[in-house]
Amino acid sequence: MILADTQPVVAHQAVRFEDGLLLDCGVRLRELTVAYRTYGRLNEERSNALLVCHALSGDQYVAETHPLTGKPGWWEAVVGPGRPVDTRRFFVISANVLGGCMGSTGPRSPRDDQPEAERTLLWGTDFPPVTIRDMVRAQKRLIEHLGIARLFAVLGGSMGGMQVLEWAALYPDCVFAAVPIASAAYHSAQNIAFHEVGRQAIFADPEWAGGRYWEKGKVPARGLAVARMAAHITYLSEQALTRKFGRRLLSGPSLTLFDDLFEVESYLRHQGSTFVTRFDANSYLTITRAMDFFDLAAEHDDDLARAFAGSRTRFCVISFSSDWLFPTPQSRAIARALNRAAANVSFVEVESDKGHDAFLLDEPAFHRTLSGFLSGSATAAGF
Amino acid sequence: MILADTQPVVAHQAVRFEDGLLLDCGVRLRELTVAYRTYGRLNEERSNALLVCHALSGDQYVAETHPLTGKPGWWEAVVGPGRPVDTRRFFVISANVLGGCMGSTGPRSPRDDQPEAERTLLWGTDFPPVTIRDMVRAQKRLIEHLGIARLFAVLGGSMGGMQVLEWAALYPDCVFAAVPIASAAYHSAQNIAFHEVGRQAIFADPEWAGGRYWEKGKVPARGLAVARMAAHITYLSEQALTRKFGRRLLSGPSLTLFDDLFEVESYLRHQGSTFVTRFDANSYLTITRAMDFFDLAAEHDDDLARAFAGSRTRFCVISFSSDWLFPTPQSRAIARALNRAAANVSFVEVESDKGHDAFLLDEPAFHRTLSGFLSGSATAAGF
Repeated sequence: MILADTQPVVAHQAVRFEDGLLLDCGVRLRELTVAYRTYGRLNEERSNALLVCHALSGDQYVAETHPLTGKPGWWEAVVGPGRPVDTRRFFVISANVLGGCMGSTGPRSPRDDQPEAERTLLWGTDFPPVTIRDMVRAQKRLIEHLGIARLFAVLGGSMGGMQVLEWAALYPDCVFAAVPIASAAYHSAQNIAFHEVGRQAIFADPEWAGGRYWEKGKVPARGLAVARMAAHITYLSEQALTRKFGRRLLSGPSLTLFDDLFEVESYLRHQGSTFVTRFDANSYLTITRAMDFFDLAAEHDDDLARAFAGSRTRFCVISFSSDWLFPTPQSRAIARALNRAAANVSFVEVESDKGHDAFLLDEPAFHRTLSGFLSGSATAAGF
Repeated sequence: MILADTQPVVAHQAVRFEDGLLLDCGVRLRELTVAYRTYGRLNEERSNALLVCHALSGDQYVAETHPLTGKPGWWEAVVGPGRPVDTRRFFVISANVLGGCMGSTGPRSPRDDQPEAERTLLWGTDFPPVTIRDMVRAQKRLIEHLGIARLFAVLGGSMGGMQVLEWAALYPDCVFAAVPIASAAYHSAQNIAFHEVGRQAIFADPEWAGGRYWEKGKVPARGLAVARMAAHITYLSEQALTRKFGRRLLSGPSLTLFDDLFEVESYLRHQGSTFVTRFDANSYLTITRAMDFFDLAAEHDDDLARAFAGSRTRFCVISFSSDWLFPTPQSRAIARALNRAAANVSFVEVESDKGHDAFLLDEPAFHRTLSGFLSGSATAAGF
């Protein structure tokens, strides 16, 4: 067996922790690598550090060209000079999540539970299940490594928002401000169901080979593409899909069943096929599982308010009106729990017809909200 | 090549039309078989016939044990003695749709565009694309064969509702009353997108073999199961899923990625795996395509009201409040078009948290609405 890598090999900026990490599942990773990127400059007081947490299919390349796709960073609309997360003011850090496939320890890493001589094996499907809390613990190690005792802010959308909430609950004294966006304190039954469809699509692909596709130099591209297609629909709103594509045909009616007939089909197929060039199927399985497991209240005697008891963090909870994957009531439940915990919280539902994806897009009302909250908080933080 | 059938062989009650059917795509089927079932008794005036149109995954076994699954008929809650569609009063007819896999002409039928000697080939993926209108034309042949000039009522949910609308538009003088339930006058971009995911899941299954799985005695079971799972989520509401399963675990956290962890996953897997024992993948492709093509206004100068111009049919349009696949605004648009056409229409949105599936379930407010409308209409029809 060889350490075959079926994706392009890219050197990622990373830090390696030789003492590893004890996971929630009880397994200890003997070594931990966290790949990360930074933007802007840490001030002398080390008080302007802002952590951006990425979503399921995101990575640490927030505000620069992606090394695999050559496309702009996934949050360039939000992070950069003069942007809502202004890199002239903030020192922005972003790390690839634990379990990811862009340089942090995950299913693509050499397994470390074997003698040194056998470390050519990859974890693959045997990578232990990780939780959102495990991801946050790994990020904490990075933050310490960078010499930062307290983050000015932690923000992120979707699964990124789950990490924000976990940061605030786990390390309340290390988070001055927290912005969970289009997120939830637990993953709903419907969302678990959509993830399960994606996983089954991957399992159904014979190229997946029981998760050992590495050894064969193959990729379960079709299964992963179907998973991505199904997920992608949930990121959009009916309005956004209708505006973008409606029922427009690419061509006249066809006599075969396979042709792209509607523009929306062609778009989805493209989304699926490009995703597999940059994402690892076993990482997709690992990360979707971490999201499914997430239930912050369950970690605190089934009372979400207890997760934030005594918190002095300033929260800004943001949702989007047309987001049906992480709908507004889930954000409102977070805000209410924060109220019960007597925390400092503002809650904003941004009117948008762009669905869950709105947090990634050019959405002025969202950008104004974010910019205003960060700017006011920075003044309060004294920089 | 042989006429291998990978599903259990069942003899269906059917009528065969030797003169075939000219399809919207321009292809003429040289012969047309329509499999059907009836319940109740046709009265002497032949005025009490009611046609039930089935949905994507339904069939003609409306109110009796299904011959393949051994389970009750899919609409036994609605059709039967003393039920809203009372078989003591109405003569109920239901036909397997054109393109289906329960005895009507479809991808499982021997292809008829070859010399007689080569008729052992199945249509498979080469079955020509059919439309909702083609399905209705085939049903019309059956109704004529049964000696019925005018149907007392046509009703159906989801794709069944599309057929109801097409019946009313195509044969207005043959439909006394029409009940489209949880349906729409066109298939939305989002719904096309969900169908496309299902089709891609089938295409991705190597057992599908370019649609020629018949010849190999195989079935693309995994792809079809994934398609069914994805579709099934869209039939339920978030509330229904949460009530049924919430985040309940089947077992404790597991160290593997493949286990069923949440009850909702186990349920979905079961839905997927049982579906493939009774449904044909190429039929699934054909029928989803027919739904995607459906756009009744487009057949009438882009004005839905014109589809019903001068109609004397009594309409009862029914939607369910938590149905996000065929949401209430789509039913309301039908009602408004009928109003513009000065047609006789009542529109009812039934409060329900069961999602699209509500039309199949024990939903008393829906049953009262249906029963009241049919009973009043029967009196008006004079029987």
